[in-house]
Amino acid sequence: MRKFSLLIAFTLLSFYSTYAQQAKYVFYFIGDGMGVNQVLGTELYRGELEGKIGIVPLSFPQFPQATVATTFSATNGVTDSAAAGTALATGNKTKNGAIGVLKDLETPVNSVAVWAKESGKRVGIATSVSVDHATPAAFYAHEAGRGSYYEIGKDLYTTGFDFYAGSDFLDPDNGGKAGSENLYSMAERNGYTIARGYKEYLKKSKKADKMILFQTEEASKADRTAIPYAIDRKKTDLSLQDITRSAINFLSKDATKGFFLMVEGGKIDWACHSNDAATVFHEVTDFDNAIKVAYEFYSQHPDETLIVITADHETGGLVLGTGAYELNLQVLKNQKVSENGFTRIVNQLRAKTNNQVTWEQIQQALKDNFGFWDKVKLSEKQEARLKDIYEKSLKNQQVKMEKSEYAQDEPIAAEAKRILDEIALVGWTSGGHSAGYVPVFAIGAGSDLFRGRIDNTEIPTKIAKAAGYVAHQ
Amino acid sequence: MRKFSLLIAFTLLSFYSTYAQQAKYVFYFIGDGMGVNQVLGTELYRGELEGKIGIVPLSFPQFPQATVATTFSATNGVTDSAAAGTALATGNKTKNGAIGVLKDLETPVNSVAVWAKESGKRVGIATSVSVDHATPAAFYAHEAGRGSYYEIGKDLYTTGFDFYAGSDFLDPDNGGKAGSENLYSMAERNGYTIARGYKEYLKKSKKADKMILFQTEEASKADRTAIPYAIDRKKTDLSLQDITRSAINFLSKDATKGFFLMVEGGKIDWACHSNDAATVFHEVTDFDNAIKVAYEFYSQHPDETLIVITADHETGGLVLGTGAYELNLQVLKNQKVSENGFTRIVNQLRAKTNNQVTWEQIQQALKDNFGFWDKVKLSEKQEARLKDIYEKSLKNQQVKMEKSEYAQDEPIAAEAKRILDEIALVGWTSGGHSAGYVPVFAIGAGSDLFRGRIDNTEIPTKIAKAAGYVAHQ
Repeated sequence: MRKFSLLIAFTLLSFYSTYAQQAKYVFYFIGDGMGVNQVLGTELYRGELEGKIGIVPLSFPQFPQATVATTFSATNGVTDSAAAGTALATGNKTKNGAIGVLKDLETPVNSVAVWAKESGKRVGIATSVSVDHATPAAFYAHEAGRGSYYEIGKDLYTTGFDFYAGSDFLDPDNGGKAGSENLYSMAERNGYTIARGYKEYLKKSKKADKMILFQTEEASKADRTAIPYAIDRKKTDLSLQDITRSAINFLSKDATKGFFLMVEGGKIDWACHSNDAATVFHEVTDFDNAIKVAYEFYSQHPDETLIVITADHETGGLVLGTGAYELNLQVLKNQKVSENGFTRIVNQLRAKTNNQVTWEQIQQALKDNFGFWDKVKLSEKQEARLKDIYEKSLKNQQVKMEKSEYAQDEPIAAEAKRILDEIALVGWTSGGHSAGYVPVFAIGAGSDLFRGRIDNTEIPTKIAKAAGYVAHQ
Repeated sequence: MRKFSLLIAFTLLSFYSTYAQQAKYVFYFIGDGMGVNQVLGTELYRGELEGKIGIVPLSFPQFPQATVATTFSATNGVTDSAAAGTALATGNKTKNGAIGVLKDLETPVNSVAVWAKESGKRVGIATSVSVDHATPAAFYAHEAGRGSYYEIGKDLYTTGFDFYAGSDFLDPDNGGKAGSENLYSMAERNGYTIARGYKEYLKKSKKADKMILFQTEEASKADRTAIPYAIDRKKTDLSLQDITRSAINFLSKDATKGFFLMVEGGKIDWACHSNDAATVFHEVTDFDNAIKVAYEFYSQHPDETLIVITADHETGGLVLGTGAYELNLQVLKNQKVSENGFTRIVNQLRAKTNNQVTWEQIQQALKDNFGFWDKVKLSEKQEARLKDIYEKSLKNQQVKMEKSEYAQDEPIAAEAKRILDEIALVGWTSGGHSAGYVPVFAIGAGSDLFRGRIDNTEIPTKIAKAAGYVAHQ
């Protein structure tokens, strides 16, 4: 009896799979630098904020499928974002630094976004950093070097997806090189409408055929490399939620078609390069908020929507617990700005005082932005470390900026963050990437393909299978 | 048509689940201290040994179900092995240090092994450390403090499972306290046959009703706290593979009953406490070899066997890559003994030379056991570090032993290991545990219950569901 019922069940299961609905709508979320501890740390931090031991879960780690993926590149045990982006986009390992080409640095390879387009889907590529940065670029560009921002910008038009979003172009005029057409001017010729900010998106989107969403020119003037960190965000700033909402809105214009949308949380990585735990946890929460927008869409189309969340690599060698068998993450709530944001505050103090900042002024700033001496008691040693750095960098003007991958920060900002992370019992091992597993979470049509430990190159082909794209280079 | 076929498929699926076979045989493998990076690091190390970038997989990470679990205890963001063992055994969070009782330290809670026994299964509890250590104890004992080794030993008899294995008892005579019955003498009265070593197991097992397998008395005289590390193992030493094979053999005696077997790889944790990467990777490989013995059994009974692999917590804050975007794990192959094993070698040198060890003798020992100056080039700075420690600890006898959780090591042993790990680009963050996720892998009957991110307390109840045990305290 059992065998017979098994036989029928399996027969009908295959029948079911044949007729199972494909993922008409695909969301592919990539948290740059978001290793497993970046996710867990955020949830444990949220738990401590509510006074409990344990997690207050984000939404995406509760998705029904969860696993881990390996990330090594073709040439390095530890990948960079270009090789990892190429793996996640095209299913091919390549050399660190390469975008959408094999490790010979010549052979172009197409991404799952291109396969989606060729299958008649509308396609969007979005990020919280510049649109030509490694991860988004891997979905539409083919360049030997990730730093060829102008060329990558041109590839964006050549590939011609329906929607792009990010902070801006990094190098719109090819460094001023004669004869280079400006990337902004290329937009119109290629049928693109550029909107600056969410409000402008709402105004322009209805009539637009293809769109690029950037932050406002004012915001780009302050920092064109990325939209602000969640922890530093002002109300007028563009957010990853805004971007995700715009993308869905724009891609849904033609309901008959279905869509593929990649959204990168690009600054999780930047905060990890700076070893700035509070900023990381805010950034991961913000990434989750963008995923929630996709989840709302999923709730309306549960049978036809697939959401996959992963990361390109781990950054910083983040460790939750430095040996005391406890965590003290709640203390991070006293940090009100990123390390980089505090650098700006110190710069403003320098400007205001004609570079004669007093210890009392720095103390006040540290109190306001890190809670020091107020909510956060410092040991004599910790206070001495801050005082020492004040003497050197602010009193005596021996300023050796602390360089991380994407920032140069005031020594006092770096030290304040370092001390707070120590009190939180958070450990950091490097300013670069590690080979650690990245998490993979999935929900919806075809999500059961994401089972068992996988390699990052398997993810785009699994998505293609779930969505019925034909994968070819 | 689609809806109709779906309906039939689901109806028959439920029918199938009702009749799906329960896990008559359950293997529950716990790698103590085996966080996600301990597993991945071992696979990347195996990859580099074969001259490739990427992994040469172990067997268990390839099992069809893979996910991650949270591990915080009732009282601490970072758990110890007692609270984690209690969670993995009974499904209850408790206070760090507590074994099989709730955080009131009084209310006893039963383990999945007890549920198995009450369901008529044969039960075995095995480990590579002492049988009364926190993880195995959580399956049969109820004690407020994990250090009550004598009481835990008595609980072993009270609970009365069919098979126990480990290095030995830690405190068989209750520290010599008058009126305490010796734990060895209690064996016979409780119907247990004690076998010392694998050969003796083979001789005694046929006639035995219940058994305890320990290492030989000679091995226990050298170190009763654990069987030797895989990297230090001699042919005559008992291995976790031997233990697993014995357990399966003994529990299979009555084929009608089915069994539950917990096997702990207890020394992964110890090597992590020592921040000794080569020893960790050998230990995880050895754990995999024990799992392969279970997998052989699974291959013969695939419909009725469940194998679950997890860990109690992460130890050491292990990070794979310290910032150079590469790994150099292959260099670890030059390490021939554990840090603790090298300590023994230094001790032998001290004894042989009447404590007048020369720099040349230490150099030769470092060459033989870490490949220094031969296969592994050292920088001037690294050599100076070793020389400095030699001068202090061996020439001038200022020996400050390096203490880790389970070892006290010669400073020169600690420094040699530290230098090799630095060259390997492996980072360590602490000498204690971290809150990092632990991996969960599963194969066989009921393994599809292990999907999505879970908490460690969910694991025993999922096993009970797969095996049809009635879970009650």
